[in-house]
Amino acid sequence: MPEIDTGRFLSDLHELRRIGAFRTGVHRPTYSPQDMESRRWLMRKMEEAGLEASIDGIGNVFGRHRGEGPHLLAGSHIESQNEAGWLDGALGVVSALALARAGLPVDVCAFADEEGHFEGGFLGSRSIIGELPEEEIDRSRNRTDGTPLRDALREAGLAGLPRLQVDPARYKGFLEMHIEQGTQLEQAGLQIGVVTGIVAIWQWRLLVTGQQDHAGGTTMAERKDAGLTAMRLLAAIDAEFPRICGERSTWTTGRIVLEPGAPSIIPGKADVLFQFRDVSLEKLQDMEAALRRLVQESNRRERCQTELISISKATPALCDPAMMRALQGAAEALAPGKWQNMPSGAGHDAQYLAKRMPAAMLFVPSIGGISHHWAENTADEDLAMGMRVLAEGAARFLAGSN
Amino acid sequence: MPEIDTGRFLSDLHELRRIGAFRTGVHRPTYSPQDMESRRWLMRKMEEAGLEASIDGIGNVFGRHRGEGPHLLAGSHIESQNEAGWLDGALGVVSALALARAGLPVDVCAFADEEGHFEGGFLGSRSIIGELPEEEIDRSRNRTDGTPLRDALREAGLAGLPRLQVDPARYKGFLEMHIEQGTQLEQAGLQIGVVTGIVAIWQWRLLVTGQQDHAGGTTMAERKDAGLTAMRLLAAIDAEFPRICGERSTWTTGRIVLEPGAPSIIPGKADVLFQFRDVSLEKLQDMEAALRRLVQESNRRERCQTELISISKATPALCDPAMMRALQGAAEALAPGKWQNMPSGAGHDAQYLAKRMPAAMLFVPSIGGISHHWAENTADEDLAMGMRVLAEGAARFLAGSN
Repeated sequence: MPEIDTGRFLSDLHELRRIGAFRTGVHRPTYSPQDMESRRWLMRKMEEAGLEASIDGIGNVFGRHRGEGPHLLAGSHIESQNEAGWLDGALGVVSALALARAGLPVDVCAFADEEGHFEGGFLGSRSIIGELPEEEIDRSRNRTDGTPLRDALREAGLAGLPRLQVDPARYKGFLEMHIEQGTQLEQAGLQIGVVTGIVAIWQWRLLVTGQQDHAGGTTMAERKDAGLTAMRLLAAIDAEFPRICGERSTWTTGRIVLEPGAPSIIPGKADVLFQFRDVSLEKLQDMEAALRRLVQESNRRERCQTELISISKATPALCDPAMMRALQGAAEALAPGKWQNMPSGAGHDAQYLAKRMPAAMLFVPSIGGISHHWAENTADEDLAMGMRVLAEGAARFLAGSN
Repeated sequence: MPEIDTGRFLSDLHELRRIGAFRTGVHRPTYSPQDMESRRWLMRKMEEAGLEASIDGIGNVFGRHRGEGPHLLAGSHIESQNEAGWLDGALGVVSALALARAGLPVDVCAFADEEGHFEGGFLGSRSIIGELPEEEIDRSRNRTDGTPLRDALREAGLAGLPRLQVDPARYKGFLEMHIEQGTQLEQAGLQIGVVTGIVAIWQWRLLVTGQQDHAGGTTMAERKDAGLTAMRLLAAIDAEFPRICGERSTWTTGRIVLEPGAPSIIPGKADVLFQFRDVSLEKLQDMEAALRRLVQESNRRERCQTELISISKATPALCDPAMMRALQGAAEALAPGKWQNMPSGAGHDAQYLAKRMPAAMLFVPSIGGISHHWAENTADEDLAMGMRVLAEGAARFLAGSN
């Protein structure tokens, strides 16, 4: 069992929490001054832990273990959503640091912009596996204020720096600890989740075209209300998806915009952002087929036409069985009966690293399931238990004693 | 039959069209420089027609007939919606002017802000019937940019001017010609609509409260999606209203806003603007009762609570039978078989004047039913026919020969 200084691990977390502090959380948007300050903080900590620290052209902060392998890669992301939680991403980075400090042969990485402040998303992890072309960086802009990514990189002092690529041959696997961001562990009274796989998110846009018109002067019989058609389609999705979904599928309409959006004007356009998630590729394909059928039927019956646009389709990532066994063994040894296997409903850097090497994730509970909100939190004792299980699991996996 | 110079009437309309011109329409928001220029134009035209012209403290432009009564009051509004049509409102003002020019004993008025650029709506017509308290002017702000009404009035040079009030005893009735803003006349191949009544608009806000959360980490079973609850309620309204509505009722959802409105976040709030219209008070009450029942049922079944807020309830206004008979007689004489009785699905200044005196409206066709859009239009020959019917109807009503 490796010597983990959980006190130091917790104090590191609380130290990082003060950078970009916002109420009980943090506001560290990617490449902002607070985010860059946290990256410099991380590099100092890496050096203190004996790692060779660097930052690359997309903002990935990398701490290279100076000794022999086989190595593990471990980490997460260090930027935050706007005015959000102190643990989302930070937990994985600081726990990885603690593994290195404990003497395990671990490279530590904070992958830039997992939170998707810039178009494209998962810029850092995609870059480090060689799946981020220069042209995409050229095109990408900040989703909130439209700042070109190139401008943000330049202002952050990263322009011209080369971008790192992992050498899969160096690693036995990739490990990421993360808060659950749901309530399943809390509801079941458990402390540890061994992640079985990471869902893929398939994002869609429904663009409905009707006829803008006067709400009073246009009879019900003649109007082409794009908002009404959109709403009926969403009602059909609400009725149909439970019939064909997987046990843990989720589907969500996050945004509806009616145009012009005035109380006395029949909407001429409706713009809907819809997504679904599952860890099974087959289930994702079933949900896509259902969505296409429902749009086709809507276009057959309704007065307004709907265009279905695929925005993105990530690949589900199954976690490595051997890594999972090591984590399960560690969990049973240190938190007997207080752990379970479970999928991750959220996307993580791990799903990209999983394309190049075996990968696994560990969850700790989220109080009230709250995340992407400054009230996000996890009890210190659960953070410490997660740290110990992570370290023991990493050690077992490296030793091959599964 | 009064001598109407329809050529001059049309050229006045086209002259007014050049003030604030936008594509084939106009952009004359209330109290803007273009709007104030149009009011000054109107005052000059009134004086040329022998009327005593003035502008009051809310922007109403009034042209008082210098001779004996009994009088008619006639008019409409002269400002426009943003980047909208050249005839909406302007037609009623310029046709009223033509009546005065033809020697009929008519006071002419352009009522300020019928289009509701400022909170409250129908400021001018409500003011002139004594239903606009100073405190409401103090509180009102521009709906688009938040400018306080007091500031706009001051910048327009209207601060400190007294506000006019009509003396109902002076008038036999109020007359307003307007474009239909629908397609019923065009579809039926008719030229004239004698309006039977003006619908009341009852405006509502549905505020749904759920729990903002992560779209992936929160299972379907535990989420409280405010957007989903809103959508199901709107679907229930869509199913129920046809069962209880009147023959010409309309209902419209003009605006839906989900908060935070991000693709990967379950909406914690939904904000919906919904309205319905009818000319029958009983039908309006039925629709309100149905809406309340549906909200109550939604609150019983759904995980998210909906608050139903009444924003405004106008009063339906029935047109005066004697005035209608005069207009029907004129229509049959001048456009035999090319006219019909019909309600107005849109609100108009006439519905407020109707609280103080007999009132009536005349419709001319809208090409394609288009209004609140710069492409709004009506054929010159239909405008001219409307003018002639209006004049003949006014003359008949004044003479009492119904």
